[in-house]
Amino acid sequence: MQASKYHINTLKEAPAEAEVISHQLMTRAGMIRKAAGGIYTYMPLGLRVLHKIERIVREEMDRADAIELLMPMVQPAELWYESGRWEQYGPELLRLKDRHQRDFILQPTSEELITDIARNEIHSWRQLPLNFYHIQTKFRDERRPRFGLMRGREFTMKDAYSFDRDEASAQGSYDAMYDAYMRIFSRIGLEFRAVAADTGSIGGTRSHEFQVIADTGEDLIVYNPESQYAANMELAEAPCLLAERATPREDMVKASTPGAAKCELVARQLDRPLTDTVKSIVLATENAETRETAIWLLLLRGDHELNEIKASKVPGLEAGFRFATETEIQETFGCVPGYLGPVNTTRPVKVIADRTVANMSDFICGANAADYHYTGINWGRDLPEPDEVADLRNVVAGDPDPAGGTLAIQRGIEVGHVFFLGDKYSKAMNATFLETDGKPALLQMGCYGIGISRIAAAAIEQNHDGKGIIWPRAIAPFEVVICPMGWHKSETVRNTAQALHDALQERGVDVMLDDRDTRPGIMFADWELIGVPLRITVGDRGLKDGIVEVQARREAEASRIAPDDAVAQVMARLSSL
Amino acid sequence: MQASKYHINTLKEAPAEAEVISHQLMTRAGMIRKAAGGIYTYMPLGLRVLHKIERIVREEMDRADAIELLMPMVQPAELWYESGRWEQYGPELLRLKDRHQRDFILQPTSEELITDIARNEIHSWRQLPLNFYHIQTKFRDERRPRFGLMRGREFTMKDAYSFDRDEASAQGSYDAMYDAYMRIFSRIGLEFRAVAADTGSIGGTRSHEFQVIADTGEDLIVYNPESQYAANMELAEAPCLLAERATPREDMVKASTPGAAKCELVARQLDRPLTDTVKSIVLATENAETRETAIWLLLLRGDHELNEIKASKVPGLEAGFRFATETEIQETFGCVPGYLGPVNTTRPVKVIADRTVANMSDFICGANAADYHYTGINWGRDLPEPDEVADLRNVVAGDPDPAGGTLAIQRGIEVGHVFFLGDKYSKAMNATFLETDGKPALLQMGCYGIGISRIAAAAIEQNHDGKGIIWPRAIAPFEVVICPMGWHKSETVRNTAQALHDALQERGVDVMLDDRDTRPGIMFADWELIGVPLRITVGDRGLKDGIVEVQARREAEASRIAPDDAVAQVMARLSSL
Repeated sequence: MQASKYHINTLKEAPAEAEVISHQLMTRAGMIRKAAGGIYTYMPLGLRVLHKIERIVREEMDRADAIELLMPMVQPAELWYESGRWEQYGPELLRLKDRHQRDFILQPTSEELITDIARNEIHSWRQLPLNFYHIQTKFRDERRPRFGLMRGREFTMKDAYSFDRDEASAQGSYDAMYDAYMRIFSRIGLEFRAVAADTGSIGGTRSHEFQVIADTGEDLIVYNPESQYAANMELAEAPCLLAERATPREDMVKASTPGAAKCELVARQLDRPLTDTVKSIVLATENAETRETAIWLLLLRGDHELNEIKASKVPGLEAGFRFATETEIQETFGCVPGYLGPVNTTRPVKVIADRTVANMSDFICGANAADYHYTGINWGRDLPEPDEVADLRNVVAGDPDPAGGTLAIQRGIEVGHVFFLGDKYSKAMNATFLETDGKPALLQMGCYGIGISRIAAAAIEQNHDGKGIIWPRAIAPFEVVICPMGWHKSETVRNTAQALHDALQERGVDVMLDDRDTRPGIMFADWELIGVPLRITVGDRGLKDGIVEVQARREAEASRIAPDDAVAQVMARLSSL
Repeated sequence: MQASKYHINTLKEAPAEAEVISHQLMTRAGMIRKAAGGIYTYMPLGLRVLHKIERIVREEMDRADAIELLMPMVQPAELWYESGRWEQYGPELLRLKDRHQRDFILQPTSEELITDIARNEIHSWRQLPLNFYHIQTKFRDERRPRFGLMRGREFTMKDAYSFDRDEASAQGSYDAMYDAYMRIFSRIGLEFRAVAADTGSIGGTRSHEFQVIADTGEDLIVYNPESQYAANMELAEAPCLLAERATPREDMVKASTPGAAKCELVARQLDRPLTDTVKSIVLATENAETRETAIWLLLLRGDHELNEIKASKVPGLEAGFRFATETEIQETFGCVPGYLGPVNTTRPVKVIADRTVANMSDFICGANAADYHYTGINWGRDLPEPDEVADLRNVVAGDPDPAGGTLAIQRGIEVGHVFFLGDKYSKAMNATFLETDGKPALLQMGCYGIGISRIAAAAIEQNHDGKGIIWPRAIAPFEVVICPMGWHKSETVRNTAQALHDALQERGVDVMLDDRDTRPGIMFADWELIGVPLRITVGDRGLKDGIVEVQARREAEASRIAPDDAVAQVMARLSSL
């Protein structure tokens, strides 16, 4: 490829709205252009990256015997009525009407349509297992699209859907996808983790996210550096930090804590460690039939944070909860927030203690009186045992892993997700097949997504420096760029550069020859911004010394190599990039 | 590829709504499944065809130095306000609102967005020429979608847009695309014609359609079998069939023609050839300022048909016309339709004669009196010369080509279109670049479409028989299918079939091994329906005789070939399919 026949248009400045580095760099490098909020044109350089990602994904899906098809972007609402998601899905689901005022949606995902296809196509157990996938444009009408390709409205996703006879077989399909995903992200060349994830509202029993490790990631990953364990913060089990409850040593005392409405202030005023304090979080639930409100008091150690996903799994809270209003708090505790506690509440509340709180003794908590806390509280002696003990908190770095070792935390960007769905959709849409006994049985499903365009952004979040992007070779728009110094001036330079280009291209290398004849500084800056992994510089001065310069994007210095050795050297170096 | 790991699901019956053969066969072969009216899922076999077409298109576009990018499916309305097409485009343009009630469209084509990109990306003449293309899902909300992929609502299109400094350079870009299209359709393996076409409302000076020849096509192509000439019926110039006007030999006579309201009936009643009659077509135009209506009388020979596109090019009719109402006709001619003519009209009308009519003498036309026609009418003698002489009619087969030879007509399916746009969009959207003199100049544009999914349907309309589809090799879902007789029963059959499969696959052949072990009749019928160009049948009986059978889809009989020669034979035969 020659630059003069291509379109390269880098920008000095990123748009003001670009908050994250991948958005800034993809715009500056001319890889994306905004068409509307969260909607981008993939410019030629950006599309090359996308195509390379798609190719790897396609190859590995095919290798795993998944079968590619292509479902439409515009899908009929009827299927979404059937599954119930027409109602359940929020405004992210873009609903539209055709000229005959019939309802359609722009697919955010395709469970409904593929289940419809499956119930028409699959008749017998003999056809199973089956796994269909497609790589298609998706649309999710985010309220506030931002972060470029990290959270766009229109984006490219690979979604696969497996169909099996039973759960054991479905587990096999799940495992095959898990393995395919491991191969995909390894081939792409990113540092990533497969992370156990919450199954959330989709239900089912298993789910893993594939997270690209990056400090700018939105997700928190809990992992054990010494083992295979990794889980999303939402799911990661937090251990009880106290093996057993110590014998009480203090009396319960009502202490004045004026203005200390937070555990940190209480601890400071009373000169006690924060780990002696307990924070009170008040939730409310409504009984769907009686419409009566119940109040819940969740207790966490002062230095711990509530994990709402975990709270939503406490018996009685599964149907949904909200934080209590100040009025409800006043009515229940006879006190303003900030000084609440489980001792002597005005009305009955359900007390749920975090595992660690349940084993604390001589602890400090609000006295249900403004500006007062109790010290020396002990379970059983000063108040009844908690109604329930549960894992309510986020893991913190340094927490012991019950299986041994210590837990650590890092940030990640979710680029893939595998999900065991069971019969959620096949049941709602009556997707059955005939079993060996001739009786219809529900298809067991799994779904498996990869954010193709998001991977491009995540790769940049993980791999960049002050000069620009540093692409892993497998998804770089070009693997090698040849920068001739003085293209028009020197025939020797021109011939050498062209010969190198042709030789590399012949060997299957994706090589760009920059024949734009711009000044070296501008040319180098362009390719450093664009992030091509390897650069060859050809100049008259070097050629007189019998060398060209080869420099990897991550290297500070170039290597001087004889032109005749350059091709072999480049081929060798590429394999490690 | 093994059939047991693939999804093959043929149907005995096509859906009742499938009116055309491509729709019927693609559905029966399991290549498409309807998601909604005009919206289809491309099933695995169908998607393979699509991907092969896309690949050829992409390779030839790249070869022509067009640069691939990807514009979004959902595009902001603002750009369409600018171009004026938000108003002009009919209900085929699907307009939608996002959650913030902002207007968007689903792209039916991308002139607006690419012009927006061009005005931001192109600064200088040094960057020109540039040609951007994308292969992307399009949506056109057809009122009555039908004919399967021939006229779907959601479909895949390749659209390219060229940008040039001036018209001469733009002409070069146009020619390069024309040549690329010739290569594309040749490689796909279809019988096609490049046909001069009307530039219609888009304006500009040049346009060619690429038409796949098929009796079921919607378009009429006029061509000269002895020359390169080919044009769409809309555009094809119809010659004057009379070199000069003959001397009058009859007197004008008012003849009684009771009930003969059509030329055919008049000719029969008067026992005169149809070619002696002239038909009157009455049009109306409205003056935009005065709102006054003008009446136009168009005259065509009795056996000829009006070409409305040509009529719309007559001076005074360019701004639009309609057929006159019966009241208007009564007021102007004092007569009911069926007996109208240019002699003695009640009020003034503009008389436009087709070229042939202008040279007729002693002709027959309505007498502006119910049940009466004049015979022996002659221009100049019985009525003034026509106000205007124009080409108003459709060509008919047998018309002489003014350049020599005779014109013929065939039907075609439009699968590609190249268009010189000039500055239509760059002017409306102020897309300029800086010329050598430092002054801004408007970009000269061309646009170039290929209906990817439509090609699949057109290929079938052209290539099928009673058994099913006959794919050209280049876009067949598989090039070769191996049909083993008794896969489970015979190890020899299994080994031979597998060895053939592996050997062909190794040589890059797209080969399917049907290991489903269905009965031969069912297996053969499946692959004949699906249309794989070459079949190898492996059976115990044949192997005992030292042969396998090789049969092209178009052949009635199989060839018996030694297994050891099969691979070489298949490779040789494939190159001619």
